[in-house]
Amino acid sequence: MSILRFESDYMEGCHPLILEKMNKINFEKMTGYGCDEVCESAKEKIRKACDCQKAEIYFLVGGTQTNATVIDGLLKRYETVITANTGHITEHEAGAIEAKGHKVTMLPSHDGKISCEDLLSYLKNYFADENNAHIVKPGVVYISFPTEFGTIYSLDELKSLRKICDEYNLKLYADGARLGYGLCASDEVTLKDIAKYCHAFYIGGTKVGALFGEAVVFTEENLIPHFFTLMKQNGALLAKGWLLGLQFDVLFTDDLYFKISRNAIKMAKQIENAFVKKGYQIFMDSPTNQKFIVLENSQMEELKKSVTFSYWQKFDENHTVVRFATSWATTQEQVDALCKLI
Amino acid sequence: MSILRFESDYMEGCHPLILEKMNKINFEKMTGYGCDEVCESAKEKIRKACDCQKAEIYFLVGGTQTNATVIDGLLKRYETVITANTGHITEHEAGAIEAKGHKVTMLPSHDGKISCEDLLSYLKNYFADENNAHIVKPGVVYISFPTEFGTIYSLDELKSLRKICDEYNLKLYADGARLGYGLCASDEVTLKDIAKYCHAFYIGGTKVGALFGEAVVFTEENLIPHFFTLMKQNGALLAKGWLLGLQFDVLFTDDLYFKISRNAIKMAKQIENAFVKKGYQIFMDSPTNQKFIVLENSQMEELKKSVTFSYWQKFDENHTVVRFATSWATTQEQVDALCKLI
Amino acid sequence: MSILRFESDYMEGCHPLILEKMNKINFEKMTGYGCDEVCESAKEKIRKACDCQKAEIYFLVGGTQTNATVIDGLLKRYETVITANTGHITEHEAGAIEAKGHKVTMLPSHDGKISCEDLLSYLKNYFADENNAHIVKPGVVYISFPTEFGTIYSLDELKSLRKICDEYNLKLYADGARLGYGLCASDEVTLKDIAKYCHAFYIGGTKVGALFGEAVVFTEENLIPHFFTLMKQNGALLAKGWLLGLQFDVLFTDDLYFKISRNAIKMAKQIENAFVKKGYQIFMDSPTNQKFIVLENSQMEELKKSVTFSYWQKFDENHTVVRFATSWATTQEQVDALCKLI
Amino acid sequence: MSILRFESDYMEGCHPLILEKMNKINFEKMTGYGCDEVCESAKEKIRKACDCQKAEIYFLVGGTQTNATVIDGLLKRYETVITANTGHITEHEAGAIEAKGHKVTMLPSHDGKISCEDLLSYLKNYFADENNAHIVKPGVVYISFPTEFGTIYSLDELKSLRKICDEYNLKLYADGARLGYGLCASDEVTLKDIAKYCHAFYIGGTKVGALFGEAVVFTEENLIPHFFTLMKQNGALLAKGWLLGLQFDVLFTDDLYFKISRNAIKMAKQIENAFVKKGYQIFMDSPTNQKFIVLENSQMEELKKSVTFSYWQKFDENHTVVRFATSWATTQEQVDALCKLI
Repeated sequence: MSILRFESDYMEGCHPLILEKMNKINFEKMTGYGCDEVCESAKEKIRKACDCQKAEIYFLVGGTQTNATVIDGLLKRYETVITANTGHITEHEAGAIEAKGHKVTMLPSHDGKISCEDLLSYLKNYFADENNAHIVKPGVVYISFPTEFGTIYSLDELKSLRKICDEYNLKLYADGARLGYGLCASDEVTLKDIAKYCHAFYIGGTKVGALFGEAVVFTEENLIPHFFTLMKQNGALLAKGWLLGLQFDVLFTDDLYFKISRNAIKMAKQIENAFVKKGYQIFMDSPTNQKFIVLENSQMEELKKSVTFSYWQKFDENHTVVRFATSWATTQEQVDALCKLI
Repeated sequence: MSILRFESDYMEGCHPLILEKMNKINFEKMTGYGCDEVCESAKEKIRKACDCQKAEIYFLVGGTQTNATVIDGLLKRYETVITANTGHITEHEAGAIEAKGHKVTMLPSHDGKISCEDLLSYLKNYFADENNAHIVKPGVVYISFPTEFGTIYSLDELKSLRKICDEYNLKLYADGARLGYGLCASDEVTLKDIAKYCHAFYIGGTKVGALFGEAVVFTEENLIPHFFTLMKQNGALLAKGWLLGLQFDVLFTDDLYFKISRNAIKMAKQIENAFVKKGYQIFMDSPTNQKFIVLENSQMEELKKSVTFSYWQKFDENHTVVRFATSWATTQEQVDALCKLI
Repeated sequence: MSILRFESDYMEGCHPLILEKMNKINFEKMTGYGCDEVCESAKEKIRKACDCQKAEIYFLVGGTQTNATVIDGLLKRYETVITANTGHITEHEAGAIEAKGHKVTMLPSHDGKISCEDLLSYLKNYFADENNAHIVKPGVVYISFPTEFGTIYSLDELKSLRKICDEYNLKLYADGARLGYGLCASDEVTLKDIAKYCHAFYIGGTKVGALFGEAVVFTEENLIPHFFTLMKQNGALLAKGWLLGLQFDVLFTDDLYFKISRNAIKMAKQIENAFVKKGYQIFMDSPTNQKFIVLENSQMEELKKSVTFSYWQKFDENHTVVRFATSWATTQEQVDALCKLI
Repeated sequence: MSILRFESDYMEGCHPLILEKMNKINFEKMTGYGCDEVCESAKEKIRKACDCQKAEIYFLVGGTQTNATVIDGLLKRYETVITANTGHITEHEAGAIEAKGHKVTMLPSHDGKISCEDLLSYLKNYFADENNAHIVKPGVVYISFPTEFGTIYSLDELKSLRKICDEYNLKLYADGARLGYGLCASDEVTLKDIAKYCHAFYIGGTKVGALFGEAVVFTEENLIPHFFTLMKQNGALLAKGWLLGLQFDVLFTDDLYFKISRNAIKMAKQIENAFVKKGYQIFMDSPTNQKFIVLENSQMEELKKSVTFSYWQKFDENHTVVRFATSWATTQEQVDALCKLI
């Protein structure tokens, strides 16, 4: 029997409808760099889904590239981007933001989220400091939705963050690498809310049904002038941009993006329930497609023989926190097989 | 009748064998970031094709990204990269090299190539200048094979460039966006020669049969330490790296990369012959898949109605130089249709 | 007899009035970072001399630092600075502009100057190119006044450059490392003209009477927001900023800056005349404090025994172009001694 | 009566012997860029004082410039510099390190110092993380001696830090903006120890007797190749470099640097004693020229009328921590006047 794999959510290819369309138009000659009708169609569908007709949309290839290109575009040289100290940009992107010349300022992480209190306190300190001309100025607030811990901001939190940003002239940017999973796990925040409260965000494709690709949405016109040239300069402009448009066009047809996201949430919930039922401790209340479970070390070693999962952190001398991740492609059979092993 | 399109060589998707394999393994769970067996297989095939077992190979997504990441990795901060003033890195990459902090030093272009004489003269001047500590130091020589004008270096030129590089402690790097077309058009230079005389180069996939992707080959061990981390920092690390490995694995099976490259050369030659036969002037002796033709302006306007091609430059008051590009996917039918229109 | 030295114009310390004032206030406790009353006084004097009350003025330490900090501040990331290919920023500043991420675009040098024709032609090409989103956008025009060849722009040339800049939405920036010498050599261009036609420029102190220091003048309000923080970030903010203010305060009292500049021009003229009288060829018509003379090689070797000067370039097999530079501190005795040797 | 000023240690000009020598050689023609005999003499004296004949020494203008240029030179692009979260480079240099492309990694501050335990723990975590190729690699350890809080590392701490650096292949770099004050306050660490245990450090001049200037000492040969060119590229190369050499030549003649440093320590001790005697609370045990005192808020307001000092932080509702700084130039009269007011 082959091993069950639950270590991440970007292990499969893409939704079959995408491959189908790729097969279909493979020999059609397309204009380069995203200036084609398939991209236009995808953009229009995303604008509608966001309920934001003025949105400017660009397709990039991957998450780190997208974060670095967008944040660099939003920041002036004397400005800094603010993140939870667990944010992907500060932890796992090899210094990509700093490589573009910007300091990343960290606030405490509350299960992966920043709190409005911490943000306000930091801003007040900065503006009260009479020597702040020697310090980088706050420019952008980075949040991830859902966070790296699978947690999600409430609608009130989103509103409050935006309010603070408006008050202090900051831009609010959301990293949506797993946006579909976050939105499907929330009982209140919708894509329209994200578009309403964020100046910029991206709709993650790589982890949610696409082969690769992230759709950046700017909810204000000309938020980053000449973004196309900046994409080129950052090596983030795909020659066959229609490949990206095609994927998002499929994903935003008939609500597919959300339909397949819901599968991941459903499968993850079943896994969580199975662990709970057997008396395992859930490490963190994480409503999305990532479940963090406390395993006794010997159990963990035993389980490893037939399932892959991610090491997260040490819990105590005898226990370890591990992560199980589902995706749009996780099947009931795979989950059943896992649950039997627990 | 739909319009014939010859304006560039990256208009189609990919070779059907690639799509076939993608369809086949779409739901296999693969390890991320290129650390999978498909990438390993592709690398091994490329090493063999290069006759360079010690080669270190990485797969990146696009050309500008690859040039910037590799050249940045090869250069020290006080060094410059030398290119023909028509080189892609200085002309059409939106300042990507400079955005990484490096000056690009230009030598005269000889139909897209740099001459050993010019290179030597520049190097001698630099090293003779007693104030050269105020000037960026030569570090890397960038060539494109074939060049942006479709021309190719001879084996002797390649050897001489490498000899100069060794003498002055420079690295020789070749941009192989259209490497297959360049090699198939040469009657002497082979992939093994490229691997022998260049410290680093890339095998272009985007324009030669792949959906996207470039295979960087370092022909010396540890030429750029921690290149994986640099890729991540530059947003050039694809999460589903196996997508890149898969494409090169197919392209380097049964010599497919070169077989399909030859098609582009053959088709281009037919187009050139058709123009010559009708008495048109060939602007530049360009043996690869790009043909530069001098058209009378009114002819050009007429032709535009049924064919797309690229404006290249003004020739004189009444004539214009235009470019016709073929690719691995260009069909005999398309060429025949074009030839009828000439 | 000690050797006569004419190789450059930054060999002496500073005008004695500066040292006198430094001695006088050495133990006065001054506020840091240029936020002191001496700096304010100097700024006010410069504003008056420029006839530009809205000018914002900053004091930096050296020329390369000033060029890099100002040009970086003026440019967007997708923009380039345009210079003659002999401009100091592209030739002798070790890639400082590129190190900040910007491409330097070169136009032909006409005795060190750019021509309006070349500039217009470049701009028209850029804006006519339908693929220019892949190319860095023109943002700043860099000129040096006087140029590296000691030549100066006429008032008409300055006006035309500014007109082009306005038309194409560019900023005009003048490197005034030797501004005093340029202005004293011109029979028409004044400091007020420089302030009228340039968006930004600097008044060179290092080569014109100061120990060190350059006064940056922005002739429009808030041209570079948060420039103070950018200075800090670039390591260009002097803790004891009053040292810079003090020097410019002295130099802009009683017209001292121009009085001492005139000395350099007068001395240089005498040297030129002496060479002409003896039948030597003047290489280039250079009206400022740098004189370029063609010497027969054996004469050059002979002269070297008692005088220092700069090698400029080879003239022909038997002749060499050399440069003699005078400064604010050059004495009649030194010039007489040199003239005797010719 | 004029106000007493104790808010910082860079308020005066320079030691009179420096001005004396500047006056003396003002009209001597000196070779540029630090390639003169005065710089050579200063370097030789510093080498002797460091007991490190192989030391390579460079003179830069200010602290932020020095930190950015040296740390950038020491780091590879994929590496990070580690500092206490109170380090000057992360707090008050406007993102200068990040502007050069490098992430600054913070460890907890223990009264301004990093602990070997924290450093080891961070390093072990990094090297144990199997995904660390996605994270910047530790490259340089930055310490300040004395710290921003006026505290100093013990000899044992220095030795241990270096031992860890050797074990993990890191470079140890000390910011010596106030080095003289730190060394004079230590009863065990000497300049020779700093030179023995640090790969690189700088001897601060700006705050210790010079008008401006910092002497960078590399204790290993060729630690940063082509550092001269990097200085130029960073705008950190002073044209009249002899001005820097002259100052350090004077300061390192007859032990002047340490003699005048001791004055600051002695004066600071008197101030501290006066506060202690009157029953005030000393906030932090800081043995150097900065004294941190807890003042009742109304006392603070009263004192402000006749003395300047720095706000440091809030202590509680009714008390504030303030800083009094002495310098090489602080006089007994000034201290007596202050003590009378307490």
